[in-house]
Formats: sequence, structure tokens, C-alpha cells
Amino acid sequence: MKQLWIRNGLFVTMDDSTPVIKGHMVISNDAITYIGEQEPEPQSLSESVEKLDGKGLAFLPGLINTHGHAAMSLLRGYSDDQNLQVWLEQKMWPMEGRYVAADTRAGTALAIVEMLRTGTTTFLDMYDRMDEVAKVTEQSGIRGVLMRGVIGLCSEEEQKAKLEEAIAFALEWNGRADGRITTMLSPHAPYTCPPAYIEKFVQAAHDHSLALHTHMSESRAEVEQNVRDYGVRPVEHLHRLGFFSRPALVAHAVHLNDEEIAMLAENGVSVAHNPVSNLKLASGIARLPELLRAGVKVGLGTDSAASNNNLDLFQEITMAALLHKGVSGDPTAIPATEALKLGTSLGAASIWKEKEIGMLKAGMKADMAAVNIDQPQYFPLTDIVSHLVYAGSGKDVRHVWVGGKQVVKDGQCTLLDEEKIRKEAQAAFERLLNG
Amino acid sequence: MKQLWIRNGLFVTMDDSTPVIKGHMVISNDAITYIGEQEPEPQSLSESVEKLDGKGLAFLPGLINTHGHAAMSLLRGYSDDQNLQVWLEQKMWPMEGRYVAADTRAGTALAIVEMLRTGTTTFLDMYDRMDEVAKVTEQSGIRGVLMRGVIGLCSEEEQKAKLEEAIAFALEWNGRADGRITTMLSPHAPYTCPPAYIEKFVQAAHDHSLALHTHMSESRAEVEQNVRDYGVRPVEHLHRLGFFSRPALVAHAVHLNDEEIAMLAENGVSVAHNPVSNLKLASGIARLPELLRAGVKVGLGTDSAASNNNLDLFQEITMAALLHKGVSGDPTAIPATEALKLGTSLGAASIWKEKEIGMLKAGMKADMAAVNIDQPQYFPLTDIVSHLVYAGSGKDVRHVWVGGKQVVKDGQCTLLDEEKIRKEAQAAFERLLNG
Repeated sequence: MKQLWIRNGLFVTMDDSTPVIKGHMVISNDAITYIGEQEPEPQSLSESVEKLDGKGLAFLPGLINTHGHAAMSLLRGYSDDQNLQVWLEQKMWPMEGRYVAADTRAGTALAIVEMLRTGTTTFLDMYDRMDEVAKVTEQSGIRGVLMRGVIGLCSEEEQKAKLEEAIAFALEWNGRADGRITTMLSPHAPYTCPPAYIEKFVQAAHDHSLALHTHMSESRAEVEQNVRDYGVRPVEHLHRLGFFSRPALVAHAVHLNDEEIAMLAENGVSVAHNPVSNLKLASGIARLPELLRAGVKVGLGTDSAASNNNLDLFQEITMAALLHKGVSGDPTAIPATEALKLGTSLGAASIWKEKEIGMLKAGMKADMAAVNIDQPQYFPLTDIVSHLVYAGSGKDVRHVWVGGKQVVKDGQCTLLDEEKIRKEAQAAFERLLNG
Repeated sequence: MKQLWIRNGLFVTMDDSTPVIKGHMVISNDAITYIGEQEPEPQSLSESVEKLDGKGLAFLPGLINTHGHAAMSLLRGYSDDQNLQVWLEQKMWPMEGRYVAADTRAGTALAIVEMLRTGTTTFLDMYDRMDEVAKVTEQSGIRGVLMRGVIGLCSEEEQKAKLEEAIAFALEWNGRADGRITTMLSPHAPYTCPPAYIEKFVQAAHDHSLALHTHMSESRAEVEQNVRDYGVRPVEHLHRLGFFSRPALVAHAVHLNDEEIAMLAENGVSVAHNPVSNLKLASGIARLPELLRAGVKVGLGTDSAASNNNLDLFQEITMAALLHKGVSGDPTAIPATEALKLGTSLGAASIWKEKEIGMLKAGMKADMAAVNIDQPQYFPLTDIVSHLVYAGSGKDVRHVWVGGKQVVKDGQCTLLDEEKIRKEAQAAFERLLNG
């Protein structure tokens, strides 16, 4: 048995019964087997137990990024400060149209390096050429919730082929990489998939016991178009198509009225809140306080590096805590602990993984980030949760573990060649640009 | 002559005629004497010129923090997610009331370490016991615009003593530390200083050729109170008191109507925009796009670490770029270059120092930060300004120079004992808490 005993650590557990523990943790193989103030019982430890001095470190559950498109990191900074249609139609789509498998690999690897180094241990990815994404996920050590995102604005044969590809990928990779990879089905959005096509995804999700993900109500224009095209707003539209009859996660959900929030809550629909991307693309500001009050499970997403432009989930946590105070005029909106839950325990619940990840607790998978708090922004050491949320950043992360395996050590990925990945990303971008 | 030749660097100059230069820079004593694509002329270099390989680094003008209260960093995380009045009256003021000189020193030193490490080379500070602040400023190598912030809710004798103290400080320290320290006069706010008292500051500013700083229109309640008490909104109120007859900088300016924006522009009044603090305290969102369109000179401020809770000006730059897009619905609002100008060249202009700092250009002071761009979030290397604004953070800063002197090397302050400062800050906070 492989064991790690972390001594004298400061553990931010996200477990309400013991929010912060100064003490000890034991990881046995892939799971946390002990956490507490006292030293672990000697008989619980193997002779070969590895020891780590936790001094100067704060440990928190690995962060969970519930919406993104990793391979688009190749397009970081390629088009900023543009109208959404120019950005999408004149910039993103032509470049994405030139992608080959090597580009997907290069972009995904670059994204995973950035996510791991900034403390994200689970990421959700909706894109294409998902075999490439899955292979990089497997190699890197990160946990991935992967799915082929399907745009249905094409012929029926093409629709059929894409759906089959999405199902085949989901079935082939579900549970692979020691269970680190799970899969979902994902029609891209109500405005890019005809209703009958969305219904086919719903049916396939039932047939194969998979959950569903889609973009929804990101921009006001999209909501208005939905009303024009289908006579109802997107939540009602998806509801009528049966989308909420499976576990469902919707990304963005910026433009919601009270009835829609109630409908999401009643149907147990989860939301991926992407505050930075929503600001950058000028989509608007989601009604996060109202969603949480209604009991909706909300996680945080970075969206892609082309609309963010980074994948540091700490920034989303900070933004969620700050933004909704300023907009609502209520300084008690989204307190620090709530914001950190969005990135950890509540994020885990939003993708139905709250029994495995999102807390530091005996029995949970050992997915964890260790933050270097021997830095000025963590002093004085008053409230560690406050400091992580308002003063910290992913750049403060020093070590990361996923399922008990150390994937970042002293700020460097252990299973990936970072320099090679940076060079390949640069070369891939230049090929695409000259493509 | 002390000379530094930086070779093969990527220089983000903030000079519109040559925004980004791949090439060389020479610093001679405290100033930039050459920047260009070509190597410098050999005869311009002294024999003892030091050389630095700029590979993997992006150089930008040192950031300028135009509003803050450094010593309050001792109160970081002591009270978050509270109503403003609770935060101020029950938490901040009682703790601040217990400060002694050693606390001001400890808090200021902690703040300066954080600012220097994150690339800030000039900070504005409004607080009390300013001799202590000035001494730490002198020692640390940072550039400081310092002033005694005066609350006038007291007897006439006390008012008189405080004003005299503010003037004495300003005269004693102006131009000290090789010119790194300059001074201003600062009545705290229209709601904490009676009109006649503000007029005395205006008179003193004329008598001693000093500029003026104050808090203004931070919260809606404060604007309403001003109307109740004096019959006019704060901008008109300050204008009538002669405040704008001297170079004047107002902090926050969140709640402004169109006439007030026009009045600030007409009178050449500068604004310190503090987006993170304004969100965190739920004060609101300043009308930055309108202020800039009107031609108002705007810089960025962190405010204190008690209402932010960090002093990384990169976060204010990022927030300025993101927030106003989302709020206005216009993705072209505050482009990346404009946001970076707020933290550099325009920030310099807002404190009347645009001839000395805020650009990398021959003749300017050598105030500069070098960012480590051999990191995933800077790849692919498309647009360095975009990456600094949307993907970067102060944690990426590796070296910092102020007036040609290296004050941060490989992420550590060269002139301050960081570990000692962290310990002293912790001890000071605990003393205050047990007060």
C-alpha cells in the first residue's frame, strides 16, 4: 500500500462540520483515509509511509472546472475586445476549422498544464476529436469529464454521424484511466441544434445512462432568438425536449427570469457559472445569488482560454465572490466560503461527484492542492478561506495530487514535459495562423 | 556611471509610437537611456556595463497604485462580507484606534513587500503616522506619493493640529529619498471634513504648491448625505470649496452623473478607480468608460488590503478590462491596452508624473517590472499586452527596478527582510486583536 502522511498542515476541508483543521492527513493509495488534529494511529500506517512536512502550506480540495474547451487554448489572445459575432465567425471558427488532431492534442496539453499548476484537479471538456483530449487527460494525471460537443447545423447524415461519434466516445472512455475519465453527451446549444436532434441526444442519454451538458442562455440575443424560433425561452424549450429528464448541466445561464430559476431548481438541473468569460464577451452577469437561494447546484467554469483568457479557477472563485456583491449592492452576497464551495464541494455536486471529490474527508479521493502561504498576501494569518478567495491565486499552488498521485511538485507538472508542450502549442498556433 | 544593458527582451513600452519592442534597453544610473530593436552604440556603454539576458521575460513599466492605505494590510481578512457600517465602525476603527507606530511600520512594510513583488513601483498612500510610512518607503526602494489623511470630525484645536501635522509632513518629506518620495495634502472625505476645514486644506495646498487628494462619491448613501447636508452633490460641493483650483485626485468617484463627469473633465481632476474594493464593499461600479471618453485622467488603486484583499495591481487592471464590458454589454469597452495604460502611463498622468514614469522610453526613470513569460498562460505568444491583462498576474513578476535600482530579484525583495516582515505583521495583528 502506498501511503502519504502530511504532518502539521492547515487543511481547508470544505466539510462544514470541521471547516479548517490544523493537523494531519493520511492518504492511502488513491483516497484520504485519515484527517484530524491528532497524529494518526501508528497501526494505521505502513512501514513505508512517506512523510511530508505541511509547514507553510494550506491544503484544499482540488478545484473543479465545470465548463471549458481545453484545445482552444491555442487561440488565447488571438482575438480580444471584439463583438461576439466577429470574434466567433471571423476569428474562432476559421481557425478551429483548420485544426487537425495534433492541434487538439497541443492545445489540450497546454490547457491541462495550466489547470494542474493552478490547482484544478477535475475539468469538464466539451469539444471535438475527443479521443485526443482523452489521451492527454489519461497521461497528465488530471480527472476529466469529457464529451463530444455537437453542433447540429448540418445534413441529417452528418447529424447522425456526429451523434454516433459522441456516443461511441462516451462508451469507450467512460471509467477509463483508473476511473479518472467519465463521459457525458452534449448537444452544443439550443441555437445550434434543431429540437428533434436534441431529442435524439436525450434518448441516447437514457439508453446509455449518461448525463447531458449544453450551453444555454449565454447572451440576450440567443434567448430572444429562441423565443422567435420556438415560442418559448430556452429553459422551457429544453424542458419540453426532455433534456431535464436526465441529470443535466447547463453552462452560462446568464439570462434567466424567476420562473426559469424555479424550473431549474425543481428539475435538479446544475449550472456552470463562467463569470469571467461572461464579462469578457459582454454576455452579462448571471443571477448567481438567486440561483443559489433557489437551491440550484452551481459550479464554476473558465470557459476556453480564448474568452477568459486563462484557466486559473481561483480567478473565477474570486470573481464570483466580488462581482455579485458589487452588482447586487449587498456586501454579504456570496461570502468567501460560498465562493470556495462553488469551486470545490458544490462544483463536485453540480457534476454528481460529491461523494468522491470536492472535500478533504476520510473516504474521499485524494484530489488536493497545496498552497504556499509563506507569502505576504497570506499575512496576517487571520482567515485562511478569506485569504484563498480574496488574496490568493492559482499561482500560489505548489503541489497537486489527483487520486493520491502527485501531478504537480514545486510548481511543475510531474507527468508532462512542460517546455515541450509550450513549444508545440506555439508551433501549432503558427501553423493554424498561416494555414 | 552604473549601467545595465538588457539584451533580447520583449518590451511593452506603453508608448503608442512603438508599443512593443523586441530588442535592447540600456539603463544608466536611474534612467532609461536607450531602447530599440538594434544593439546600443558601443561608445554609449561604459566598460563596467552589467548585462542581463532578457530571454523569457516581458518588461513593462512599473505599475502605479494611485489609492491605498498600506498600513491597513494588518487587517487583511479580519472582516469580510460585512455591511459597510459594521465593517468600518465595529471592525476597522476599533482596531485602527489601537495602532501604535510599530503597527504602522509593520503593516506598511508588509504592503510594500506585496506591491513590489507584484510589479508596483509607485504607490500613493493616505494614512496617519506618515513618518513611519515614509521611513519604510525610503528603505524599501519603492516610489511613494505620501500624505497624512485627515478626518476632521473633531474639535477646532484638533483640526488645527492635524492640518499642521499634514503640512509639516508634506514639507519635510517632499523630494526625499533621491526624489522617490513626493507629498500631497489630503482631507479624508467631504463627509468626514466640514466645508470650512476643507477650505483650509485648499489654502494650504496653494501656500505650499501641493496637490490634493480625497475620497469622493464612493457610496450612494454618501452622495445622498452630501445633498442633504450641503444641498449639492459631492463634485459641485468640492468645486465650490476650491478643491479643483489645485491639481486634485479623487478616489472612487463611483456615483457620478453626466454633469459631474463633465465638471471633473473641465477642471482637470484625476480619478483613482478602485474596481475590486468597490465590488467587495458593494459600493457599486464606477462609470469608467464615460470618464475616459470625457478625457478624465484615471489611474487604478487597490485601496487597502482590508477591502480588497490584496495589493496586486494586475488584478485591478484585469478587473477594469473585464468588468466594464460585462456591465455595459459592449465587448469593446476598455480594451486590453487601455486597461494596461490605466495601471501605467495614464496612472502616471493622473498623479502628474507622466514625464518621469509610466512608459519605457529614453529619458524616463527606469521603473520597470520583468514578467516570466515561460509559463503556459503566456502561450501561444500572440499578443503580449492581451496576455498581461487577461492571463497574467503580479505573481508572474520576477524582477523589479525603481529608478534603476533592482528592488526585486527572482521574486524576492532585495532591500527588505521578507520573513522578518511577515513575522512582525503577524505579531502586530495579534497584539491589536488582544488589544
